Amino acid sequence: MQEYCFGIDVGGTTVKMGLFRTDGELLEKWEIPSHTENEGAAILPDIAKAALGKLEERGIDKKDVAGIGIGVPGPIDANGVVPHTANLGWGYKEVTKELTELTGLPSKGGNDANVAALGEMWKGAAAGHKSGVMVTLGTGVGGGVIINGKIITGAHGAGGEIGHIHVDDEVPGACGCGNHGCLEHVASANGIVRLAKWMLEQNAVKTVLDPETMSAREIWDAVKDGDTFACEVAERFGKYLGLALSAVAGTADPEVFVIGGGMSRAGQIVIDYIQKYYVKYVFRGCRDAEFILASLGNDAGMYGAAKLVIEE
Amino acid sequence: MQEYCFGIDVGGTTVKMGLFRTDGELLEKWEIPSHTENEGAAILPDIAKAALGKLEERGIDKKDVAGIGIGVPGPIDANGVVPHTANLGWGYKEVTKELTELTGLPSKGGNDANVAALGEMWKGAAAGHKSGVMVTLGTGVGGGVIINGKIITGAHGAGGEIGHIHVDDEVPGACGCGNHGCLEHVASANGIVRLAKWMLEQNAVKTVLDPETMSAREIWDAVKDGDTFACEVAERFGKYLGLALSAVAGTADPEVFVIGGGMSRAGQIVIDYIQKYYVKYVFRGCRDAEFILASLGNDAGMYGAAKLVIEE
Repeated sequence: MQEYCFGIDVGGTTVKMGLFRTDGELLEKWEIPSHTENEGAAILPDIAKAALGKLEERGIDKKDVAGIGIGVPGPIDANGVVPHTANLGWGYKEVTKELTELTGLPSKGGNDANVAALGEMWKGAAAGHKSGVMVTLGTGVGGGVIINGKIITGAHGAGGEIGHIHVDDEVPGACGCGNHGCLEHVASANGIVRLAKWMLEQNAVKTVLDPETMSAREIWDAVKDGDTFACEVAERFGKYLGLALSAVAGTADPEVFVIGGGMSRAGQIVIDYIQKYYVKYVFRGCRDAEFILASLGNDAGMYGAAKLVIEE
Repeated sequence: MQEYCFGIDVGGTTVKMGLFRTDGELLEKWEIPSHTENEGAAILPDIAKAALGKLEERGIDKKDVAGIGIGVPGPIDANGVVPHTANLGWGYKEVTKELTELTGLPSKGGNDANVAALGEMWKGAAAGHKSGVMVTLGTGVGGGVIINGKIITGAHGAGGEIGHIHVDDEVPGACGCGNHGCLEHVASANGIVRLAKWMLEQNAVKTVLDPETMSAREIWDAVKDGDTFACEVAERFGKYLGLALSAVAGTADPEVFVIGGGMSRAGQIVIDYIQKYYVKYVFRGCRDAEFILASLGNDAGMYGAAKLVIEE
């Protein structure tokens, strides 16, 4: 077995590059800019150049490298083909094929939320578990489903699109995906602010929160301070997540749920609100699924991308 | 590769026995009674006797038999262990181990709804697909999720427990599982009758249906005859299924949904009502998932059980 591999997490602003040992040790990480102009034509060549340069710098032979795993912000199929990724400027792109042509190394690809889930399952909060679901509560709500150590990619690259499970019929407006009532619309960092504003419009109660300027962080701080209104918002947030994750459990019945993303920095209290409603709604056999906070932070995607190219 | 195998579907009243070729041809099927008295102690010995007797009758050598696959009505883990199966009188039982001891043949087990799904994927309506979800609309609502040809069993044997996804906050009463608002409670054959009665209590409209005696079949017949109330019931049924299956798609993103069970005999109209709401609620990338009616009827469980013991 080869000793090294790369785990690459491509974002709209920067590309996170990781050089790993195939036992999972992260040897070095660094970032390069994502050049999304010109339909993102330079992104893969830039990655290839950075990876090959790193091998040269360290005197590592290509034959000792298992491959380059890459996570991208959008759907990518089992053959490493992206139909379209708005954030990167890409249209149709054979990502892994191109990366292999540029580097001479094997390449595998995955959706960023899915590879983050794989990373947390491999070396993060859920290490040691065989099956788990990660929910990333950030600007949006991302998800990844891992069964027996493998990503459920889905027939349309939409496996683990937990953020677009329908959970609400009241809060107005369309989700970024075009649907109404998606989990992401009411429970992401933007969503919980949207939810709180709408709840205040329905019923103008007293709160420490400023309806004009409040952020997700301020809402959770107010929850911790016992603000009655903020706690009501958190209850509703917990109900939405509990509903969605109980449906996920009724499908895939994972051992563990990993809660990550910026909003998870509020800590265990976020899990407490989610788990309260999860336990209420879920099939009884699944009640004892564990809930844990993610531990790899922004490195999860690199870890999971690296894992893609490591054989069991 | 061996030429023969058995697929066994154990029910509360009868055991369906199937002798298969390992290419999937059902050579012979027959039934034996399920002796559930005495904690179901005779069930596995009866099955073993019937299987071995069939080999003798046909002059088939055990070494030409790949194994015995068995589907049971309840949770069963990856090691073939059942914690408890009320329908059969069983307490804790090492089903496949016992069956192997009794027959000298390899054995694998699965939950009945899961093996029915596997059967439909292998030789039924969804043959040729790699991933699919089967929903069985019978007395209850069963489900099975198949990804890359394998059952998602789940950490607690509850993979594919679609019937207990929460979809309703209005229809009163508890589901058989103890929860409230489960899909099964409002969309099984019993559930749709419960739903219709409750809707009539809310609003006593004119209908050809007799609120005291109506059955699921009569409701669907009335839908086909254009009865306004029956059509409203079907809309609500479709909404419940569409909601649940869109959440399933947001988790596993299958190529195809197979609709089976007694209520599916009403035909394509059942799919039409489900798909209308599925398309409304599901993440757009999953909208073109196929919906098809099951084709193996009561034999699906035997087929799927047989598939369990056939190597790829």
